[in-house]
Amino acid sequence: MKQHRVTFLPSRRSIEVDEGTSVLEASQRADVFVNNLCGAEGVCGECRVQILKGDFQSSDRLSAFFSQEELDKGYVLACQTKIRGDLEVEIPPESRLEQEQIMIGERRDSAEIQAGTAPQQIPEAPFYAFKPLVRKVYLELPRPTLEDNITDIERVSRELRRKIGWYAFEISLPCLQHLSETLRDTNWKVTATLVKDNGRYRIQRIEPLDTSNKNYGLAVDVGTTTVVAQLVDLRTGKVLGVEGSHNLQAQYGEDVISRMVYACGKGGLNPLHDAVIKNINNLIKSLASTYKTSPLEINAIVAAGNTTMSHFLLGLTPCNIRLEPYVPTADIYPQILAGEIGIEINPRGILETIPSVASYVGGDIVAGIVASGIADHPEIRGLIDIGTNGEIAIGNNEWLVCCSASAGPSFEGGGTRCGMRATRGAIEKVEIVDDRVKYQTIGNAKPLGICGSGLIDCIYELVRNKIIGSDGKFDRSRKDPRLTYEDDVPQYVIAEARETETVEPIVFTEADIGNLIKSKGSIFAAIKALVGYIGLSLDQLETFYVAGGFGNYLNVSKAVAIGLLPDIPKEKIRFIGNSSLTGARLALTSEEALEKCINVSRSMTNIELSNYQPYMDEYIAALFLPHTDRRLFPSVTY
Amino acid sequence: MKQHRVTFLPSRRSIEVDEGTSVLEASQRADVFVNNLCGAEGVCGECRVQILKGDFQSSDRLSAFFSQEELDKGYVLACQTKIRGDLEVEIPPESRLEQEQIMIGERRDSAEIQAGTAPQQIPEAPFYAFKPLVRKVYLELPRPTLEDNITDIERVSRELRRKIGWYAFEISLPCLQHLSETLRDTNWKVTATLVKDNGRYRIQRIEPLDTSNKNYGLAVDVGTTTVVAQLVDLRTGKVLGVEGSHNLQAQYGEDVISRMVYACGKGGLNPLHDAVIKNINNLIKSLASTYKTSPLEINAIVAAGNTTMSHFLLGLTPCNIRLEPYVPTADIYPQILAGEIGIEINPRGILETIPSVASYVGGDIVAGIVASGIADHPEIRGLIDIGTNGEIAIGNNEWLVCCSASAGPSFEGGGTRCGMRATRGAIEKVEIVDDRVKYQTIGNAKPLGICGSGLIDCIYELVRNKIIGSDGKFDRSRKDPRLTYEDDVPQYVIAEARETETVEPIVFTEADIGNLIKSKGSIFAAIKALVGYIGLSLDQLETFYVAGGFGNYLNVSKAVAIGLLPDIPKEKIRFIGNSSLTGARLALTSEEALEKCINVSRSMTNIELSNYQPYMDEYIAALFLPHTDRRLFPSVTY
Repeated sequence: MKQHRVTFLPSRRSIEVDEGTSVLEASQRADVFVNNLCGAEGVCGECRVQILKGDFQSSDRLSAFFSQEELDKGYVLACQTKIRGDLEVEIPPESRLEQEQIMIGERRDSAEIQAGTAPQQIPEAPFYAFKPLVRKVYLELPRPTLEDNITDIERVSRELRRKIGWYAFEISLPCLQHLSETLRDTNWKVTATLVKDNGRYRIQRIEPLDTSNKNYGLAVDVGTTTVVAQLVDLRTGKVLGVEGSHNLQAQYGEDVISRMVYACGKGGLNPLHDAVIKNINNLIKSLASTYKTSPLEINAIVAAGNTTMSHFLLGLTPCNIRLEPYVPTADIYPQILAGEIGIEINPRGILETIPSVASYVGGDIVAGIVASGIADHPEIRGLIDIGTNGEIAIGNNEWLVCCSASAGPSFEGGGTRCGMRATRGAIEKVEIVDDRVKYQTIGNAKPLGICGSGLIDCIYELVRNKIIGSDGKFDRSRKDPRLTYEDDVPQYVIAEARETETVEPIVFTEADIGNLIKSKGSIFAAIKALVGYIGLSLDQLETFYVAGGFGNYLNVSKAVAIGLLPDIPKEKIRFIGNSSLTGARLALTSEEALEKCINVSRSMTNIELSNYQPYMDEYIAALFLPHTDRRLFPSVTY
Repeated sequence: MKQHRVTFLPSRRSIEVDEGTSVLEASQRADVFVNNLCGAEGVCGECRVQILKGDFQSSDRLSAFFSQEELDKGYVLACQTKIRGDLEVEIPPESRLEQEQIMIGERRDSAEIQAGTAPQQIPEAPFYAFKPLVRKVYLELPRPTLEDNITDIERVSRELRRKIGWYAFEISLPCLQHLSETLRDTNWKVTATLVKDNGRYRIQRIEPLDTSNKNYGLAVDVGTTTVVAQLVDLRTGKVLGVEGSHNLQAQYGEDVISRMVYACGKGGLNPLHDAVIKNINNLIKSLASTYKTSPLEINAIVAAGNTTMSHFLLGLTPCNIRLEPYVPTADIYPQILAGEIGIEINPRGILETIPSVASYVGGDIVAGIVASGIADHPEIRGLIDIGTNGEIAIGNNEWLVCCSASAGPSFEGGGTRCGMRATRGAIEKVEIVDDRVKYQTIGNAKPLGICGSGLIDCIYELVRNKIIGSDGKFDRSRKDPRLTYEDDVPQYVIAEARETETVEPIVFTEADIGNLIKSKGSIFAAIKALVGYIGLSLDQLETFYVAGGFGNYLNVSKAVAIGLLPDIPKEKIRFIGNSSLTGARLALTSEEALEKCINVSRSMTNIELSNYQPYMDEYIAALFLPHTDRRLFPSVTY
């Protein structure tokens, strides 16, 4: 078959592909990210690209997505365009996801730190004794004599016991196979690699001489949107560096549900599994190169992710997670050799996956609970992670309950006319004074759309200015040049056409508002129902932690004012950043923390909201701004 | 390089090899067995073959091994002969080892059963509860509902607990990977494979529908000379069949020491490891085909062998076993997947290796102790396995001691002029009345040499007839046509030239007698020293078990009369056949028996005889027939 070279701009990455390949497929194979929400069905219009040069064949449906001017400039949908010759393809900003915009760990970019919205640290973060999952112990052994001729491995074990305590070590076969020569060639000086697995120690490897100064681990947060990894020196627990990348699974669907649909349909599980493994391997290569180590010196990985991501990671079929009665294959995962699933670290290096609780309460939440110390203190605290789902956990050192509520894609920029993810060009802050709109975009770029925190600001500003009512409907009697109508549906112009990158106005419609009210109502109802399930009231929560990327960019007061978060004293609401990653790192560096994760996953009670009538009642009550029962929001003054 | 075809007779097997390959190597690659004691050094003269046709180049040293007549007939040493053209090579009987002559388990050939020398069964064999190492449990699971939506694997575990008891099952990753589909495709009817490993249960595999009627195991005795395997139905514990083959390692050296020398020199460990794996795979194929099952339905193997054989099996370097201070790599071996070392059974099938005690007291002895029940009863009993080494264990349910004494190769047919192994044509029984010698050969063939039991008969008959004295020296004053001299060294003709296959007389020399006295002295001294070490006398042993192939062919009275076995009432001496295999089978079919093996290996005290002065004293005292202290042998009347 004829081959053509496709070059993508601005990165100038190129690849040879067969004639007839779609531009989207070519971009995926070239590792060039192009937005794509619908799984290449040609319906979401997210994969806009501009063909600068070359022969192609595109579908007739383009007119639904592009103006004539754009069509003339060569704009097409990447998924609907087949390659017929060598091409040059520009990925416009709105279709790109740029590396530097991924929130990794507690880091934020300087603009936000200057804006005073940097996340607070976790003040009550528990202390876990430093005892990494994989330890290296240097041993100088006494030579055997006729009086002391125990076996080679027993000699190693005896010295290990002297150094670290009396344990019955399990042994892996490869560590025995050349032990005899290794001990004698090195004059009885070796380094044992010790792995904790399911409550036991295993001698995983015995190397010549002292290599105990080379022992690295990786904590990984496998998020639906991003995959973030921290390289940790397991001698000291010090974090050497952190890197993140967009989850390459996005090419098969934007959210977990669409990826499950892909994996359980014609696509199969492998592409999803392979994508996340590639993510992790790329992060490993990059971190190892930046911090001048070798992937072979990485001996342990702890990964945390939601239940679906953990299934994709381990190659477990996730199909019944999304189908009633929502049954995952497993919630506690075996420790494996990382190489078994294609992760390229030391061949004897291991992978632990933080256990889940239920289909929609995953290891990321378990890790967050351990990182925040909720399960270590008698005070009752809550944790929320808002994304497509809002996962909520409440409890203390004696009990834990959790639930998950579907929030829809609104907070991640989906389901609204001009919504977008929190990347370059997204409006993240909005203020409305009279008919003037002030906004701030990520990277101070020309605006492309509105991300979650910007949308919350919009609603808040509209209701505060009485442009919309508590029911989310526009005041049609209002005279406001920004209040316009399209097919008699009112919408509010946040950025005018001349200000934007795409020269289209950025608007916020009544339908958008309705979707966001449903989303926030769902989250608040879940919080309220869960608190009620335990027989508490909201003011009995000592602290309410907000985890995850979205939380990190949130304005608390506004989130409370629209009725998303409960109206408790502001100092009780704390952002803890990527607590999934923090928890994974704790489990990597402390046996105690990993055991705590397992105990949390085993002991936490999951409330299935789809079954729970009080949740439905709370949901209906929450479909107002801030709420039908204003007594729940005493601090809200509009 | 030029290729030549070599055809071996009588089997007519042939192989293409490069010009210059030795005939021995070619035979090995063609799987044609040719005796070879020295590891292809050209010094033992065992690998005699006859070149019938074709071009070859042989060494000048042949005259030391062959008569001119033989040289004229084309006799050469296979290891010293290079192939220069297509060849036809006859393997003469003395260089062959024939399949049907391997003792497997308790079976003996009909001639011996008629002769009344069939082994006794083990009357006190302990009862171990039937609970095989790998179990298959058929499960019909309730479907999940919203009220009962535990994970798939937990649903399997819960049902397993209901069926077999409350355990925290470990899970292997492959058993999770398609679990979700398997459960749903089969209408929730599956079979779980459960493995016991180091005190825990692991769910190793979950298969569609009911496969619990297909669960086989293999017990293997990895002997230095022979490898014997029993196919066991793990549903019932029933032995379906047993097969044996010569240990293919013999091509690299006859005994363990020469094989260690080979493995630790230029040859390396791999050929030895590969050879025993090939043995086991061949037995598996053959047993599976005979008993109409598939190797894929074999889920567990338990192997017992001496410490060196266990090291070769698992690919552990054995080199320090033979060097002071005699340190093996390990004496307790990890459970592994059989496939990890190339054994071809179910890919998730496991291999357990019975633990050893010390360099020269291996898993075969541990298995023998468990099979004989020594460690289960309060009575003090002994066990001896006589080969190149004599391993001796004494004890009861509270304590166990053991030792190993080097016996030299005499009992296996080495180190004597006309000695040979117990194969077709070997004189296995001798009686001397006046100057008439009556003998019996294995398979009633023309005699080729004398095997161990025949040599013991010879000594006994010579001393009983006063042809030799208690010191093993011939009475030179005796007039006896069978007493001849070679270079003034006396020898006794057991079979005259005209009677034998090789038309050479079979003789028994004064040097042979000296070697045998040393061998039997060494064994008896070890028994005596070990009994003395515990502070007992020989008559306090309630039973004395004789294990292994050699034991099975022994005449007890004669073995006692020459001072090899202690002079205790004959009914106390019991042959238990291949107790290594029996013990391996018990460990395969009973968790309790495997635990007993581990406890025996951990608790048994090994006495290092090379350090132990009383042993040296006993040895000197034992270099007489039957002994310098005749009070120890009151029943001996000559």
